[in-house]
Amino acid sequence: MRHRIVLVGFGNVGREFARLLLENRSELTREFGLDASIVAILTARHGSVENPRGIDVRRALRLADAGVSLESCGRGISERSPEYIRRARADTVIEVTPLRIAPRQVALDHLIAALRSGKHVITANKGPVVYHYRQLRDLARLNHVGFRYEGTVMDGAPVFNLFQEALRGARLKSFEGILNSTTNLVLSEIEAGRTYADGVDAARRIGFAETDPSMDLDGWDATVKACLLCNVLMGGHVRPERVPRQGISSLAPEAVRDAVADGKRVKQLARGWREGRTVRASVSLEAIGPDHPLFSVNGTSSSLVVRTNMLKEFQIVERDPGLRQTAFAVYSDLIAIHEGRLSP
Amino acid sequence: MRHRIVLVGFGNVGREFARLLLENRSELTREFGLDASIVAILTARHGSVENPRGIDVRRALRLADAGVSLESCGRGISERSPEYIRRARADTVIEVTPLRIAPRQVALDHLIAALRSGKHVITANKGPVVYHYRQLRDLARLNHVGFRYEGTVMDGAPVFNLFQEALRGARLKSFEGILNSTTNLVLSEIEAGRTYADGVDAARRIGFAETDPSMDLDGWDATVKACLLCNVLMGGHVRPERVPRQGISSLAPEAVRDAVADGKRVKQLARGWREGRTVRASVSLEAIGPDHPLFSVNGTSSSLVVRTNMLKEFQIVERDPGLRQTAFAVYSDLIAIHEGRLSP
Repeated sequence: MRHRIVLVGFGNVGREFARLLLENRSELTREFGLDASIVAILTARHGSVENPRGIDVRRALRLADAGVSLESCGRGISERSPEYIRRARADTVIEVTPLRIAPRQVALDHLIAALRSGKHVITANKGPVVYHYRQLRDLARLNHVGFRYEGTVMDGAPVFNLFQEALRGARLKSFEGILNSTTNLVLSEIEAGRTYADGVDAARRIGFAETDPSMDLDGWDATVKACLLCNVLMGGHVRPERVPRQGISSLAPEAVRDAVADGKRVKQLARGWREGRTVRASVSLEAIGPDHPLFSVNGTSSSLVVRTNMLKEFQIVERDPGLRQTAFAVYSDLIAIHEGRLSP
Repeated sequence: MRHRIVLVGFGNVGREFARLLLENRSELTREFGLDASIVAILTARHGSVENPRGIDVRRALRLADAGVSLESCGRGISERSPEYIRRARADTVIEVTPLRIAPRQVALDHLIAALRSGKHVITANKGPVVYHYRQLRDLARLNHVGFRYEGTVMDGAPVFNLFQEALRGARLKSFEGILNSTTNLVLSEIEAGRTYADGVDAARRIGFAETDPSMDLDGWDATVKACLLCNVLMGGHVRPERVPRQGISSLAPEAVRDAVADGKRVKQLARGWREGRTVRASVSLEAIGPDHPLFSVNGTSSSLVVRTNMLKEFQIVERDPGLRQTAFAVYSDLIAIHEGRLSP
C-alpha cells in the first residue's frame, strides 16, 4: 500500500527530502516495504498542488529550482493550508516551513490539523514544537498517530531517538552543545582571518543561513533548540523569549582573535540544566580551551554533550553536515512511523 | 508479573548490575512496570544458587564482595550451567562471564540453552557474539525471544541501539574508534610520564583490566569489538584471529613520548571498512595529531567515529566511564526486552 505524503514547505530541506525519496525509492520498498508517494506540495511562494496518484517529484524539483510555480504538477489548491491538510487523503504530513518565534503560527495550525484528522506528523520545524510540545504529543497519542521531530536539533544526528529509544532508563541532568551551524561557521571563518560578512556569505553559499539569517546570527536558532531539548527531554517549560541569549551579530571580531592568541576559541554554547524542580536554559558566547569537549567542533559541525544519571558524560558530534543530513532526519522519521514507532 | 532473571557471572559487571537493580527497583516498577527479580546466580568461583522467590541480592553482594560462597543465598545448583539454564523457570538469562577468544566456549552454550528454551538473552560478553552472531540472532527470532548485547562495545553508550533504532535507513560504510579503556588509560599514563606498569595498576584499581589484563594489553579486546561492529552492523564475516592486531604490551614508551614531543598522541585505533563485498578490520597503534577526531579521547574514555551513506561523519564519545556504565547497558537492554523491543 502506498504511504501518501503531504509536504508542507518546499525550500532547501523539503527539496532535499524529495531528492532523497527519489534516489532511495527501490531501497525503501525492498528493505522496509515502504512505497512513499508525495500527493501534495504546499508552498508560500511557488503555489500549492495536489495529485492523488503521486506528484512527479522530478518535475516539481525542476520547477522549484527554476523559481517558477508548481501549478503544472497537479491540481491547484486554493483553500488555506490547514483546511487542505484536514481534508487531504494522506497518511503523513511533513512540515518543513521556516522557523518563526511566536506561540501562534500557521505551522502549528498545520500540525494540529494533521493530528486531529488522524494523520502522522513529521516536522523539522522547531517553532510549533518548542511552544506546544505537550499539546502536540498528547494530540498524537489521542489520535493514535505518529509525531516525530528528529530534524529539529542537529539535523539527521539522532538526538531525540537517542534518548527515547537508545538511552531508555537514563535521566538527563544537563547538557551543553554547539547547535547552530551558521554561527559556528562564521566564528571559524573569523578565526581564520576572514570578516564577519565573509562568514555569513560562506554559510549562505552552502545552503545554511537560509531564509532569514538573523534567526541564526541573533542566537534565536540555538536558543529554540536549547528550549526544545529542555522541554522534550527534561520535562521543562522553557520559552525562547525568556532565555538569556547571545548571538554573534554584535560580537567584536577582536574577541575571537584575542581568544585564538590565548590558545582558545570563542564558541556559542547552548546549555540546559536543572535548578531544583525547574529546568533552565542559556545561550552564550564563551572562550573555551583545548580541554573542553566542544573545542574541536568547528565549521558547520555541531555537537551535544549530555550528563545523565547513568552515563557520566556522553557526547555526539555531527561533522560537516549538509542539507542531506537534515533531509535524512525526515527520511528516518518516515521509516520509523512506517514501522509503527510512532514517537521518538 | 515478576520478570525472573538468571544471572550468569558475578564479577565486577554482574555485581554492579545487581546494585543498579537494587537502587532503581521502585523506578523500574513505577516508570516501566518492570518488577525484576534475580532467581539464580551462576558463578565459577563462588558457587551457583537459585531461589525461585528471588535471591536476596544485598546478601549475595555482601558474600561475593567478601570472597565467600553464595550458597547461603538459596538452594545450591549442582548440574552444569547450560543444563540448569535449559530447565530454569525464568524469563531472561544475563551472560556476564569473562571474554574468551575461541569459537567453542561455555558462554555460547549458555546463550544457546537460553534461546532454545524460550528465554530472552542479554549479554555483555563479546566472545559468543563475535563468532556466532548470525546463529544466535536467528535462534532468537525462531523462538520469538529477545537477544541484546549493547554492553559488548563502549559499555553503556548506545552503539547497536544507535544503528538499529536511531539510525534506521543509514548504511555504515566505515568506522574508526578507541574501544579499549585499559589500553587508552595506560597510553595516557605513559604520556603523563608514568610507567607502563603504573598504567596497568591504575586500570586495575578502578576495576578495568579485570580478569585477564592480557586481553586488553595484547589488543584482543579492541579486536573483538572491531569484529563485532563489522559482523553485526556491516554484515561482515570477520574473525578476531585473522585481524591485524597491535596491542600495547610490546610498545616502547619512547614511541609515546616522541609523539608527544611532536604534538601528537599514540592511540590504539580499531577500524572497519568495506573492500568490494568484503568487510575488513584492523587494530593498530598510531600517532595522531590534534585535528584527528579521536585525539582528545583520553584516559578510560572511548569513542567511535562512523561514516554512513547519510551522515557524513558521526561520532559518539563516552567520557570517563566506570563499571556503572557497563551495568547500565545490561539494565537498558532489560528495559528494552520488557517493552518488547527484542533486538537492537
